Amino acid sequence: MTDLVTFGETMLRLSPPRHERLETATALDVHPGGAESNVAVAASRLGVDATWLSKLPDSPLGRRVVSDLNRYGLEADVVWSDSGRQGTYYLEIAGGPRGTNVVYDRADAAVTTATADELPTETIRDAELFLTSGITPALSATLERTVTDLLEIAREADTRTAFDVNYRSKLWSPSTARETLETYFPLVDVLVTPARDARTVLGAAGDAGEIATALDDEWDFETVIVTRGADGAVASHENSLVERPAFEAETIAPIGTGDAFVGGFLASRLAGDDVGTALEYGTAVGALKRTIPGDVAIVDRAEVERIVAGAHATISR
Amino acid sequence: MTDLVTFGETMLRLSPPRHERLETATALDVHPGGAESNVAVAASRLGVDATWLSKLPDSPLGRRVVSDLNRYGLEADVVWSDSGRQGTYYLEIAGGPRGTNVVYDRADAAVTTATADELPTETIRDAELFLTSGITPALSATLERTVTDLLEIAREADTRTAFDVNYRSKLWSPSTARETLETYFPLVDVLVTPARDARTVLGAAGDAGEIATALDDEWDFETVIVTRGADGAVASHENSLVERPAFEAETIAPIGTGDAFVGGFLASRLAGDDVGTALEYGTAVGALKRTIPGDVAIVDRAEVERIVAGAHATISR
Amino acid sequence: MTDLVTFGETMLRLSPPRHERLETATALDVHPGGAESNVAVAASRLGVDATWLSKLPDSPLGRRVVSDLNRYGLEADVVWSDSGRQGTYYLEIAGGPRGTNVVYDRADAAVTTATADELPTETIRDAELFLTSGITPALSATLERTVTDLLEIAREADTRTAFDVNYRSKLWSPSTARETLETYFPLVDVLVTPARDARTVLGAAGDAGEIATALDDEWDFETVIVTRGADGAVASHENSLVERPAFEAETIAPIGTGDAFVGGFLASRLAGDDVGTALEYGTAVGALKRTIPGDVAIVDRAEVERIVAGAHATISR
Amino acid sequence: MTDLVTFGETMLRLSPPRHERLETATALDVHPGGAESNVAVAASRLGVDATWLSKLPDSPLGRRVVSDLNRYGLEADVVWSDSGRQGTYYLEIAGGPRGTNVVYDRADAAVTTATADELPTETIRDAELFLTSGITPALSATLERTVTDLLEIAREADTRTAFDVNYRSKLWSPSTARETLETYFPLVDVLVTPARDARTVLGAAGDAGEIATALDDEWDFETVIVTRGADGAVASHENSLVERPAFEAETIAPIGTGDAFVGGFLASRLAGDDVGTALEYGTAVGALKRTIPGDVAIVDRAEVERIVAGAHATISR
Amino acid sequence: MTDLVTFGETMLRLSPPRHERLETATALDVHPGGAESNVAVAASRLGVDATWLSKLPDSPLGRRVVSDLNRYGLEADVVWSDSGRQGTYYLEIAGGPRGTNVVYDRADAAVTTATADELPTETIRDAELFLTSGITPALSATLERTVTDLLEIAREADTRTAFDVNYRSKLWSPSTARETLETYFPLVDVLVTPARDARTVLGAAGDAGEIATALDDEWDFETVIVTRGADGAVASHENSLVERPAFEAETIAPIGTGDAFVGGFLASRLAGDDVGTALEYGTAVGALKRTIPGDVAIVDRAEVERIVAGAHATISR
Amino acid sequence: MTDLVTFGETMLRLSPPRHERLETATALDVHPGGAESNVAVAASRLGVDATWLSKLPDSPLGRRVVSDLNRYGLEADVVWSDSGRQGTYYLEIAGGPRGTNVVYDRADAAVTTATADELPTETIRDAELFLTSGITPALSATLERTVTDLLEIAREADTRTAFDVNYRSKLWSPSTARETLETYFPLVDVLVTPARDARTVLGAAGDAGEIATALDDEWDFETVIVTRGADGAVASHENSLVERPAFEAETIAPIGTGDAFVGGFLASRLAGDDVGTALEYGTAVGALKRTIPGDVAIVDRAEVERIVAGAHATISR
Repeated sequence: MTDLVTFGETMLRLSPPRHERLETATALDVHPGGAESNVAVAASRLGVDATWLSKLPDSPLGRRVVSDLNRYGLEADVVWSDSGRQGTYYLEIAGGPRGTNVVYDRADAAVTTATADELPTETIRDAELFLTSGITPALSATLERTVTDLLEIAREADTRTAFDVNYRSKLWSPSTARETLETYFPLVDVLVTPARDARTVLGAAGDAGEIATALDDEWDFETVIVTRGADGAVASHENSLVERPAFEAETIAPIGTGDAFVGGFLASRLAGDDVGTALEYGTAVGALKRTIPGDVAIVDRAEVERIVAGAHATISR
Repeated sequence: MTDLVTFGETMLRLSPPRHERLETATALDVHPGGAESNVAVAASRLGVDATWLSKLPDSPLGRRVVSDLNRYGLEADVVWSDSGRQGTYYLEIAGGPRGTNVVYDRADAAVTTATADELPTETIRDAELFLTSGITPALSATLERTVTDLLEIAREADTRTAFDVNYRSKLWSPSTARETLETYFPLVDVLVTPARDARTVLGAAGDAGEIATALDDEWDFETVIVTRGADGAVASHENSLVERPAFEAETIAPIGTGDAFVGGFLASRLAGDDVGTALEYGTAVGALKRTIPGDVAIVDRAEVERIVAGAHATISR
Repeated sequence: MTDLVTFGETMLRLSPPRHERLETATALDVHPGGAESNVAVAASRLGVDATWLSKLPDSPLGRRVVSDLNRYGLEADVVWSDSGRQGTYYLEIAGGPRGTNVVYDRADAAVTTATADELPTETIRDAELFLTSGITPALSATLERTVTDLLEIAREADTRTAFDVNYRSKLWSPSTARETLETYFPLVDVLVTPARDARTVLGAAGDAGEIATALDDEWDFETVIVTRGADGAVASHENSLVERPAFEAETIAPIGTGDAFVGGFLASRLAGDDVGTALEYGTAVGALKRTIPGDVAIVDRAEVERIVAGAHATISR
Repeated sequence: MTDLVTFGETMLRLSPPRHERLETATALDVHPGGAESNVAVAASRLGVDATWLSKLPDSPLGRRVVSDLNRYGLEADVVWSDSGRQGTYYLEIAGGPRGTNVVYDRADAAVTTATADELPTETIRDAELFLTSGITPALSATLERTVTDLLEIAREADTRTAFDVNYRSKLWSPSTARETLETYFPLVDVLVTPARDARTVLGAAGDAGEIATALDDEWDFETVIVTRGADGAVASHENSLVERPAFEAETIAPIGTGDAFVGGFLASRLAGDDVGTALEYGTAVGALKRTIPGDVAIVDRAEVERIVAGAHATISR
Repeated sequence: MTDLVTFGETMLRLSPPRHERLETATALDVHPGGAESNVAVAASRLGVDATWLSKLPDSPLGRRVVSDLNRYGLEADVVWSDSGRQGTYYLEIAGGPRGTNVVYDRADAAVTTATADELPTETIRDAELFLTSGITPALSATLERTVTDLLEIAREADTRTAFDVNYRSKLWSPSTARETLETYFPLVDVLVTPARDARTVLGAAGDAGEIATALDDEWDFETVIVTRGADGAVASHENSLVERPAFEAETIAPIGTGDAFVGGFLASRLAGDDVGTALEYGTAVGALKRTIPGDVAIVDRAEVERIVAGAHATISR
Repeated sequence: MTDLVTFGETMLRLSPPRHERLETATALDVHPGGAESNVAVAASRLGVDATWLSKLPDSPLGRRVVSDLNRYGLEADVVWSDSGRQGTYYLEIAGGPRGTNVVYDRADAAVTTATADELPTETIRDAELFLTSGITPALSATLERTVTDLLEIAREADTRTAFDVNYRSKLWSPSTARETLETYFPLVDVLVTPARDARTVLGAAGDAGEIATALDDEWDFETVIVTRGADGAVASHENSLVERPAFEAETIAPIGTGDAFVGGFLASRLAGDDVGTALEYGTAVGALKRTIPGDVAIVDRAEVERIVAGAHATISR
């Protein structure tokens, strides 16, 4: 039995070496990147039996995605498609005031036509927890429907569900996003949202704790987690708030920090930890992620536990 | 006044280091690649005042294409588009029996919507020669029409026209290709075709000389050139055949050899050379191209002339 | 149920960029390399459900080996050890007269202490075919015993067995090797040996066909395959000889060719092909391997079938 | 009509990867670098029609310089020389206390023999603005004279002139520099000087504002700009002082910041902006430059405007 | 006559590019690293005639170590061994909270069997100063004895001796270390110890000055130096304490800082400087080392003197 | 006592990665290269105690040269100069018909001012053999004189002398070269010349053997060696001709082959071998050199002896 199943798009990320420009770089590094596979990798690095579902083109590019995820120890259960593209995105990483810039080239990806009928939904029925994110329905009308179907399949099978709001302004407007996401919320057990997205998309107000409480009150989730970047995260769970700060990190690669947090949080919860402990695992995995090139948290349990335990980074020899 | 104007798509080519596989390469080299800009670069390296027309997305990827072509000394006159993708292709280069493999990711490129109305056709009217290739109409119905329009504009303005058959089996079928191309032939002065394409698409038979003669007889071109890869090229011109062998080359990067040949041939013709001399320039530029990574012939006139003159490659010090 | 199980050591190979010297290279490329995992990867790339058994140190180096093999699609079932090293080898690749040089640094690898008791032998019992090679018993007295135990377990469970002689002169003498290997032969169904090893170690004489026949006569194997490098391979099977030439290849990375051959041969046999067809698959995978950096045949079924079908390598676009 | 023409030397910069030492680096990165072409690139990235004049050896090295500048979108109008070297410099970039070290190898560069007679001075006559810097006359007696000639040509043609003091202690002494520069000042409309150079070379005293005012009073420039590195810049213009702070930047490559500032300032002025706005464009381009490897500000107008508008760098997706 | 002789193990260090993980890096950088050769290189860069003694395997790996040390200007006088490994270590460098991780693979190195009989001890007798460190006896019982022998040889020959405690918790326990080291102390003239090691291993208490005084009182060294990382170092010498702060540095590569300090200190002392000046040279070389990739301080005397003189790092041009 | 002393210029060679063009390469590899240091390295790799004399600028570039040569095991005894450049050359390596191209940037190198007075000529007096080549006097009038002085010093001290004609057409004309070289010949014991140079410069005619005999007859050398590239070499010695073919090699880096030959030949002669054996060592080292990137033969004695013994290159494991 699988512990965690996630569904979504994974792109190939093409990025110049740190600091260089897309206009002049002579080679681009290749990494896999997708919110839902990022979560599943992070969880599986902590010992969760995780599977990622998706639809990919039957091409060297699609196979590359699976090969990369396998390398990180993640099981991929993929529908191979004869049509549709492999989504890509170009990432230029730089410090301020230039900042980091994402250029999406993900239109018409094979995954945009994925329906519940063709996906191996039995895996969802057999899992403990199913997760997807707000990026998925933003990709196509088909996927908007598929997300509903998968959440309903999970609900029917008593598989708990988690949903990360993950708002992407280059994909849809706040109002469209809200309208869609709110159709999912009754089917969601664990909601994760950046405070910023809650304000932009969900009309939330107040600080992170107030947002978590208000969302929990309105939709009666099992748990609501509101993340605040460098300021940590707060959870509303069983009518109380639990809060944890972030760990300090030398940030090399910020993209994927939120997914790493979710993967760490869910892994800890699946292992039976309480919400406070799970927030600590989430922030520890997130902090480690920031030091690791690429979008994925290539961590191991021992180093996460060392950080949760508060050990300082030194040279060990 | 511009000597040569070409029109077509230029893609970003993403390729693993020589011998490596797309599935495992950690970085991909970036080069611009497009038949018609390849021709224009090769010609401009020999002193031709060449301009490439196209339509590109107004993004770092589209701007990258222009930046790369400028670097090689080519003028680009581009319509910037708010919609449409930057075409890309993935190239895995290997020796036999693995061979070289192209994975196109060029659907919905911005250029596929380019019309004669929006392009700077005045440049064509003012040029001595206009060239496009059989790849362009294969990309979209709009471009099929645009090619007709541009050839007609050239004809009206007494700008001579050149057309390279450049058949791509991943884009269209031989019969569709033939039907389309034959609508262009009455508007074409100089036809270039690989012998293989002439057989596959145009129903030609016999050896390269017979193919050239037959095409010339049927369509009454000014010049027909039939290329035979490592066996050189033959031209039918003013009712006689001219033939030249290829120069031997250590082949590092075969893609673009044909375009380099065309660029060298046209540059020589534009400089007033006879067809035989022009074939020699074409095969010399093609041979040099095979030694140069990327799709583009980054040559200079002195080395081309040294090869035409038959000098052996030695260490010069 | 697993189709193929292999057992042996996989090292980390550290190699300067092609042509450079170990003495001056500033960085070394890292690849996994081990005869038995090489075989299993090659077979799994052709669709075989393959598992590799071994014992590795519980360190970033040991985990690296599993991560790399997972990446190529191979399942690894590994005993993690708190003692013993991760075997490594240094490889300097060069053309003649310099030649390619291997510097082993594999003493005291964790795998040298692996016993049948601690290994997941149930996997062997459930498999169709079990393979190991002559490298394994050469590594330690413990492993010499373990190989016997595993072959006996397979025999008892009606799992067929394959054995590749793979003589390594830096590990043991021909006479010691022969003495040990001949204790295994009664337990082996499919024997693979390079003609050179058969002559050096097993006292064979004559050409490859004569060697195969003699070995088959003496030990009554199900199948004996004698490989001859660039001259292909010959099999003795059910009292007749089957012979196939090698495919020509541009050789970039010869190490692992033999293992790729074995993986291709066994995959074909497991799929029900006759011995002649299996030899063709073996030589095709071996030829592809020679074009691929590293020790492992990162191939796919389609390209192997294209080569078996005799297609020439061209640029496909 | 060209907006901006600059004249000076552009070298090839050879630098080890960041942090490495010249003594042990196995490869050196190649970038073009020269104060006056840096200014022209920065301005042209903001939409100015800019041309750089110089004299280069007719060699692969000289052609490389033009190729690189073309790549960034700059027009180069160059006298090709059969004698004289291509200037180079070696740059070791490091943090404190090691610091960044420049090793010039620029003696006898082709440009040191450039005279006004051979340069395409018509371009200067047709331009709105002509710029050179204090590096140019420091290179040779011939160039000292040529600078006078070009400034006079500009003055006669009503082309405005700008001059950046750019004192280089490895090229000449403060007193020689002052003597020479003061012969130019009557021909200069816009003077730019680092506060440090004004103190070392021009005998200035006081803070940047006092320096600007004093220089303006003494020489009656149209505008004097005094730059203060991380503390921004101050301009004396029409009897009043305008001051702007620098934007904070993660500094990867400080060399070229001053030139980027000048390019941004002049582009803004040429577009009709007031001096205060132009200072903001200058400091914004300078701040961006600090994040970009190489000596040249490969920016685009949109990101400069975003910074001038005060937007924070975030991940845009 | 040699000024300084050191004895110990030098490993090959294999490290992923900064920030990358051992699990996924495709290439590993190679550097030599060993406390005693690090000290000797640092001293020789400042003009000391230094020689490093050791025992290495007669293989491309062992020869590589000598080649690298020669490159930095160090003389190596090595016993070549037909048995024993070349010690290696894997180093993953990262910022917090991940931190830097060392994976040793140094068991059974050739040096572990080195005896005083086979080493060129005449070099020690002829030198002014002999140094080894606490790493050496931790490697084998043979080396524990060899260190005693070499210190006695030095003492007999009136060669002064220096010893760096250099405690490595992965090699031995604090109590075993203390027991061994205290047998050496009567033979040691100059003791260097990190404050942390003094507390962990030697049972010291109090601040660095108190530790230095107590050690000096107990063992009557000529000089005791206690280092405190970013807080500088303090020396007890002739009944008084001398203290110097560290220089600030942008830390790229912290490993080897302590050895660089010792090399700088000893070079200054050998040149006749007083202890305070020598501490300044030590901290200056240590600060430079932190900016230089690898374990070795590739510095020159001029830059060290510039830092000792208090000059700020600027761009010199 | 030193066995072999050589004198000449060593440049820094800057070269794009194999196949790439100087115009577009983003990084250049750095190698030391100079005929006389190449010879000395090759000889020292075979056990000769060799020293290279020269004059270098006291800069990071000059120190780099010594550091690189030390790395290969060569002793450098250098006059450090405050004036004069470090010679460099740019090398573009390519197959035919492009060929390999050298761009010298060696004017005004520090070595061009080297006089016998300032060089450590005692080393020459104490050596068995002194070598320089025809490149050295071509660099300056001063060096033309210095070569005479050094040859005379050697002659007086009974140090044997060797001279390699090494004609460089980019440095001087054949007639000037001949005039100068012939003033040296009476002072030369061992003359080495490529057959091509003998024909171009020395007016020789006939095949290599005839050239050797004629030169020997005319100038009464101890030994004359005439090299013929891929056709091996012939020596005239004591009135008889000795001839050896070249070994076949996969040629990666042809530059330096001749110097490697000379180093191998002289090392063998210094070891007491006869001329035939020495020719074999020369051609073996030359063949190995062709497989090694850079200008220098980084070989070891064992592999040279293996080739001289006629062993085939195989994979040794």
